[in-house]
Amino acid sequence: MSKGEETRREIVDRALALASEVGLESLSLGNLAANVKLSKSGLFAHFRSKEALQLEVLRRAVDLFIEEVVIPALAKPRGEPRVVTLFEGYLAWISDEQRVPRQATGGAAAGRERKGTCFFIALSQEYDDRPGPVRDLLVKSQRDWHHTLARAARLAVEQGHFRADLDAEQFAYELVGIGMAFQQLYKLLDHPKAEQRARTAFRALVARSRRADAEAPRRH
Amino acid sequence: MSKGEETRREIVDRALALASEVGLESLSLGNLAANVKLSKSGLFAHFRSKEALQLEVLRRAVDLFIEEVVIPALAKPRGEPRVVTLFEGYLAWISDEQRVPRQATGGAAAGRERKGTCFFIALSQEYDDRPGPVRDLLVKSQRDWHHTLARAARLAVEQGHFRADLDAEQFAYELVGIGMAFQQLYKLLDHPKAEQRARTAFRALVARSRRADAEAPRRH
Repeated sequence: MSKGEETRREIVDRALALASEVGLESLSLGNLAANVKLSKSGLFAHFRSKEALQLEVLRRAVDLFIEEVVIPALAKPRGEPRVVTLFEGYLAWISDEQRVPRQATGGAAAGRERKGTCFFIALSQEYDDRPGPVRDLLVKSQRDWHHTLARAARLAVEQGHFRADLDAEQFAYELVGIGMAFQQLYKLLDHPKAEQRARTAFRALVARSRRADAEAPRRH
Repeated sequence: MSKGEETRREIVDRALALASEVGLESLSLGNLAANVKLSKSGLFAHFRSKEALQLEVLRRAVDLFIEEVVIPALAKPRGEPRVVTLFEGYLAWISDEQRVPRQATGGAAAGRERKGTCFFIALSQEYDDRPGPVRDLLVKSQRDWHHTLARAARLAVEQGHFRADLDAEQFAYELVGIGMAFQQLYKLLDHPKAEQRARTAFRALVARSRRADAEAPRRH
């Protein structure tokens, strides 16, 4: 990366960290400028508008999600192992505290242990009533995630791990629900069994998706 | 209700409608004052602080939820019929557009068909990083909801509808996940099969919770 690209990337990462706390809409150019030691006009030299910055922050989050959750799963054999890796990556993504630089955040959670969150679940709430390009990109990213999960389930059918009459989109829907409830239990309710509940729900979902005569394939 | 109580109730209802769109933290006293035709000082005569107003708005949402979702279920026989009614009420709550007066909202969704949302799911995102009395009340309301669902599942075990070894809290967790994924599909993704997906997931959850020898009780 050139120096200019590096600076831009650093700004976007800081903005993502800030937006993870205060929301993308409340991302303040003033706040961000102080944070990256640039003037507001310096920021505007990198992004022509607040919306351009918001879109790039969201694109960066999508890239990170693909890198951390989707790619590692594609390295696994098709079928149940890949489905399991997608789920594990999703849980880790939701509960990961280290993804964004801590020092970049000075918001409401300052001075308090920060637990991870799913940027996309949070944005789903923020943008469901807010039409525009940011919402459109968010919708696309969430549809893509459902499609990725459904495709992995379909491949598990083809591999003979999952039963032939499995509704792959329904499988994706239920997996997403398990993740969302996990985030609530883990973060808002600070429930000691959040992860256990999520894993139990996922195991049950996989068990009832399996072919009656299929043995559980070895993980990894 | 006295005239004063009526005015107060009307303010809280308008504030709830506004908060459903812009979030509870962004609820502006100025915006709200214009909306209820009161001065900001007039508003402060009813609520000593923004936080007092926020708490009362959240309490009102909890009361509405109990009235619309929990009470109708308590009128049903214990067991699966009550569990089904809780789920149906939850879906209706999430998708209901008519709960709050439309004219009270002039926010981002103005001029666009507004689809329902779950105030609590939205707030879970808004407040998970924001400690204080509003978050505490939100946490309590969501724990209560999990407990209500788990208790209904436990009664279904006692009635012989659900199997004796059912993990009632796990049941509650999975039901909440189905509701959250429903909201995303219904509202953000505008998916034509959102309701069908939710019902299919719920039927599967109930089916695997039933006693092996229990017949499905008649739905009403």
